[in-house]
Amino acid sequence: MATFTGVGSTPLSGVGTARWFRPSALELPDRPDPATVDSAAERDRFEDARDAARAAIREARDRAAAAVGEDEAAVFEAHEQFLDDPQLVGAIEESIDDGTPAEHAVADAYADAIAQFEGMEGRMAERADDLRDVRDRLLRELLDVDSVDLGSLPEGTVLLADRLTPSDTAGLDPDAVAGVATVTGGRTSHAAIIARSLAIPAVVGVGEALTDVSDGATVLVDGEAGEVVVDPDAERRASVSGVDAPVVTEHVETADGRKIEVAANVGRPAELDPATARGADGIGLYRTEFLFLDRDTPPDEDEQFEAITDALAAFPDERVVVRTLDVGGDKQVPYLDLPDEPNPFLGRRGVRLSLGDHADLFETQLRALLKAAATDAGDDLAVMVPMVARVEEVEDVLSRVEAVAATLDAEGVDYAIPDLGAMVETPAASYVAGALADRLDFLSIGTNDLTQYVMAADRENDGVADLHDPLHPAVLRAIDRTVTAAHERGAWVGMCGEMAGDPDLTELLVGLGLDELSMSAVTVPAVKARIRETDSETAAALAREVLACETRSAVASRLD
Amino acid sequence: MATFTGVGSTPLSGVGTARWFRPSALELPDRPDPATVDSAAERDRFEDARDAARAAIREARDRAAAAVGEDEAAVFEAHEQFLDDPQLVGAIEESIDDGTPAEHAVADAYADAIAQFEGMEGRMAERADDLRDVRDRLLRELLDVDSVDLGSLPEGTVLLADRLTPSDTAGLDPDAVAGVATVTGGRTSHAAIIARSLAIPAVVGVGEALTDVSDGATVLVDGEAGEVVVDPDAERRASVSGVDAPVVTEHVETADGRKIEVAANVGRPAELDPATARGADGIGLYRTEFLFLDRDTPPDEDEQFEAITDALAAFPDERVVVRTLDVGGDKQVPYLDLPDEPNPFLGRRGVRLSLGDHADLFETQLRALLKAAATDAGDDLAVMVPMVARVEEVEDVLSRVEAVAATLDAEGVDYAIPDLGAMVETPAASYVAGALADRLDFLSIGTNDLTQYVMAADRENDGVADLHDPLHPAVLRAIDRTVTAAHERGAWVGMCGEMAGDPDLTELLVGLGLDELSMSAVTVPAVKARIRETDSETAAALAREVLACETRSAVASRLD
Repeated sequence: MATFTGVGSTPLSGVGTARWFRPSALELPDRPDPATVDSAAERDRFEDARDAARAAIREARDRAAAAVGEDEAAVFEAHEQFLDDPQLVGAIEESIDDGTPAEHAVADAYADAIAQFEGMEGRMAERADDLRDVRDRLLRELLDVDSVDLGSLPEGTVLLADRLTPSDTAGLDPDAVAGVATVTGGRTSHAAIIARSLAIPAVVGVGEALTDVSDGATVLVDGEAGEVVVDPDAERRASVSGVDAPVVTEHVETADGRKIEVAANVGRPAELDPATARGADGIGLYRTEFLFLDRDTPPDEDEQFEAITDALAAFPDERVVVRTLDVGGDKQVPYLDLPDEPNPFLGRRGVRLSLGDHADLFETQLRALLKAAATDAGDDLAVMVPMVARVEEVEDVLSRVEAVAATLDAEGVDYAIPDLGAMVETPAASYVAGALADRLDFLSIGTNDLTQYVMAADRENDGVADLHDPLHPAVLRAIDRTVTAAHERGAWVGMCGEMAGDPDLTELLVGLGLDELSMSAVTVPAVKARIRETDSETAAALAREVLACETRSAVASRLD
Repeated sequence: MATFTGVGSTPLSGVGTARWFRPSALELPDRPDPATVDSAAERDRFEDARDAARAAIREARDRAAAAVGEDEAAVFEAHEQFLDDPQLVGAIEESIDDGTPAEHAVADAYADAIAQFEGMEGRMAERADDLRDVRDRLLRELLDVDSVDLGSLPEGTVLLADRLTPSDTAGLDPDAVAGVATVTGGRTSHAAIIARSLAIPAVVGVGEALTDVSDGATVLVDGEAGEVVVDPDAERRASVSGVDAPVVTEHVETADGRKIEVAANVGRPAELDPATARGADGIGLYRTEFLFLDRDTPPDEDEQFEAITDALAAFPDERVVVRTLDVGGDKQVPYLDLPDEPNPFLGRRGVRLSLGDHADLFETQLRALLKAAATDAGDDLAVMVPMVARVEEVEDVLSRVEAVAATLDAEGVDYAIPDLGAMVETPAASYVAGALADRLDFLSIGTNDLTQYVMAADRENDGVADLHDPLHPAVLRAIDRTVTAAHERGAWVGMCGEMAGDPDLTELLVGLGLDELSMSAVTVPAVKARIRETDSETAAALAREVLACETRSAVASRLD
C-alpha cells in the first residue's frame, strides 16, 4: 500500500484498475529547407486543420453542455477564440509565408503564447493548458494522428495521466471511470472542475511520483483526502466515504428528533433526476443562469415559466428554492453588456443588476415565478435573491414583487406570491440578518462567497487559497450571527455553499442551528446518514466550543 | 445669491473672486494636400514635441510629488506611458508618412484612443482626461501655444473651469486659490483627488449651469455640501466650516471629561509640518509607502530608520503610529513584481505580502522600527500591520518581531519593542477583534477598506458607489463589534479612515467608544472643536439609537 498526495477535487472516492492515458506523442518531422516549402499549399493545410479543429471543438462543447452544463462548456468557446485569435493566426500565416511548414508554424506560434500565459498567476496560467489543448487538436489534424477516445474506457478504470485537457475530461464516461489522478493541475483547473461536475473522484497535481504507478494496479482515488492509494488494504477500502452511503428517500431527523432538510443544489434541468435519485428533500438552490447563458437574447417569460414548473414537477411535495438571476462577478453574459470592472467580485453582481441596469429581466423573471407559484405544485415554490447587502434592497425587491402581482392581477392572470428569501453572502448581510429576516420568510447562507468576502480573499486566486476556508473563526461567527438573528425573527435558515455538503461538518452545522442544508446531489445520502447519528444537544455544545476558538487550527483540533 | 450643485471633493469651504480658466483653444490649421507635406520634417517636429512634452510631464511630476505626494504624482507616470505608447506613436508616425502634418496626426490618433476610453466605466473612463492632457501638451508644442500658468493666480481666486487636467490642478498654489469649481468631473477624478490632497475646497461636475457665473463675481465653494454659491449672504459665509475652526494645540476632552486623541494621517515627510501646525495629537497613521514608490529598489534599513525618527522628532511627546508596508491591491510597486490578479482588492495585499513573498522587506522594516523605538523620542512609537484577517497572522507578526529583536540583541544593537497593533479593515478582523486585541496593544479601524469589504463594493467603482458608505448599518455594527470586543480585552481603538475626519460624525464616533480619531491634518481643528462640545453620555445614547437603525436612511434621519 503506497500513498501519493495531491489536490482532491471532489469529496468522492473510488477504487479501480489503473490505466495510463498516454496520448500519441505529437512529434514534428524535421524542418525542411524553406525554399522547398509550397507556402500556398501549407496555408491550405492550415486552413483545413483549423476547420476540422473547429468542428471538433464545437462537438466537444455540445457534449460537455449536455453532460456537465453550459457553465463548464464555456471553456470550449474560449478554445474557439484561441483558434481564431488574429495574433496567433497572423503569426502562423506569416511564418508559413516565410517557408515554414504548417505544423512547425503552429507549434512555434503556440509555444510563444503558452510561454506568456505560463508566466502569469492563477486562472491565467491555466489558459496555457487551454492553448495546449487547441494546439494539439491542430497538430493532430496536420500530422494525421488519431485522438484517443476516453469515452469508451472499461468500467472500473482509474485513469492516470500527466495532465488532462478540458476536452479529455469532458469526454469521460462517469459510469466507467472510478477515478482520475494527474501529475499536474490545480484545484481550479478546468479538468478538476469538470471532474467535480461529473461526480468523478479526482486527485490532481500529484507530481512526478504518480508515474511510479503501473498499468493494471489496483488504485484508490480519495478526492476528499487528496490521496491516491496503490493496493489499498481492506480498512482503507471500507473508509471510502460519501458515495457509498445508502440513499434515504424520506426526510431525516437527528437522533433526538430535530428535523433537518437535506436538499440539492441544481444548476440545469438534467440535474433534477440525479437529485431525486439521491433522495434530496427538494431543491435548496435552483440556479437560473442556465436559462440565460449561451444564447443571444434573454429567455422569455414562457420559457422561464416552463423551467420553473418542470423543477416543481420533479419534486411535487418538496420545496424548490429558485435563485433569481445571479450574473456579474465572474459570470458574464455577452448580450447583457455587463460592465468591465477592475474588481468584478466587488462590483455589480446579482441583485445589484436586478434592481439596476437589468430591472426589465428581473420583472420578467418575477412574472414567471409568480405565475408558477399559482400552479398545482406551486405551493412549495420559494424564491431568493443573491448578493444582498442592504435592507433597502430587500424592501425594493418586495415592492417589485407587489408591483408585478398588481400587474398580473390587472391582466387577469393567475398568480401567487411564493415564500421569499435572501442569500447571505456579503458580510453586510450577516450584520443585518435580523432586519432581513424580519422582512422575509427565510435566509440561505452561501458559504463560498461569504467566506470570500469575510476573509477579503478571492476564491479563485490561489495566492490567497489558505484564507478561503469556511472554518476560519470569523466565517463561523458570521454564520452563527446570521442563524441566531434570523431565528429570533422567526425565519428559517439554510446553507447552500460547498460547506453544506461535507459530511464531516454536518454535526457542526446542526449545532449552529441550520434548518436546511443544500448540496450537490451526490453527497445527500452521506449527509442524511450523519444527521441521523447526530444528537442536537451534543452538536450545540460542539458549536459553542468551536465558536470560542480563535484560530483555524484550534477549530480543526476541536473538530478532530 | 444663486446656488449650483455638484460633487464636493473636500470637507472644506472657501470664498473668493471668480476667475474663469479658459486655456487658449488649440485650433488646428486646415489640412494641406498630402503631396505637399514633408513627412521627414513632420516626423522631426513630432519627435521634438514629444521630447518637450516629456520634459514638461517630468517637471509636473516632480512638482506634484513635492506638493502632493508620490501617490498622486504617479498619474504623470501614466502620462509618460501614453506619450510613449507604441500603438499611439505607431499610428501617428504611419499617418505622418501618409502625408498628414504632425498636429493632425496627433489629434486623430488621440481622438481614437480617447473615444475608446470614454466608452468604459469608472476609472477607465477618466483615462480619457489623461489622454486629453497628454494630447494638449503635444499640440501646444506643435502649435506653439503657451500653457497658462495656474501657479501665479492672485490670492483669493476661485478658479472656474470646464475641466481641469491633473497637470492643471497639481500646478495650483493652495495659498492663492480659495476654491475650485468645474463643469465636468467626478469624485474620483484625479483633479478632485489632487485638490483634496492640496486641501483646496473643490466642487466638480457642476454641469453647464456653472458657465452662468461671471468673472469677478464673489463665489463661495462649499466642498462639504457640494455647492457653489454666487454672492453668498453673510449667514452663508459664516457657515463655512472646517478650515475656520481655530487650531487647538493641546489634547481635548468631551464636555464631561472623556479624553479623545485627535491625530493626523501622514503620507510623506512634507505633511509632518502641516500636521503639527493644525494641532494634531501625534500621528494616527503614518503610511510608509512613500519610502518604496518611485524608485528601482527598496529603501535600506538606514533610510527607513531616518524617516521614522524624523516623524518621532516632529511629535516629540506624542504617539506616532507607523503602518508597515501596505502595497498590493491598487498600489503597485514595479520592482516588487507583485502578482497580476483578477480581483486585486481580494488578493495579496498588506500583511499577506509581508508574511509571504516579501518577508525580507518586512524584516528590514521591523529592524528599522525596533531601532527607532530605542531612540530618545522612541517611547511613543507604535506599529500596526494592515489587512489582517486572522489571529494567526498577528501571531506570526509577533514571532517575527521577537526574531528581529533576538537578532538585534545578538548584534549588540540598541532596540526596543514598540506598541503593536492591527488595522481592522476586513470583516474577518471585526469578527475576531477580541482575539486580536488580546494579543496586541491597540486596533485601528480603516473605514474605507472596511466599508468596501463589508458591503462587498469596490471603493473605486462608481457603479456601486451608493454601497460604499460607512453609514450603512452593517458597517456601523462592524465598528461597534470591534470597539466593544477590543475594550473588553483592554486594548484601545482608533479610527483612521475618512469617516474619522468628518466633524458631523464626531459625536457618533465618540458614542461608539473610539479612543482616537486620525484624519487629514486639515480637519483636526474642527474635530477637536466638536469633541469639546460633545457629552459622552448623550453620544453613547445616540450611538445606541443609530446601531438599532436597519437602513441607511434611518441612520441619516437619526443623525439629522
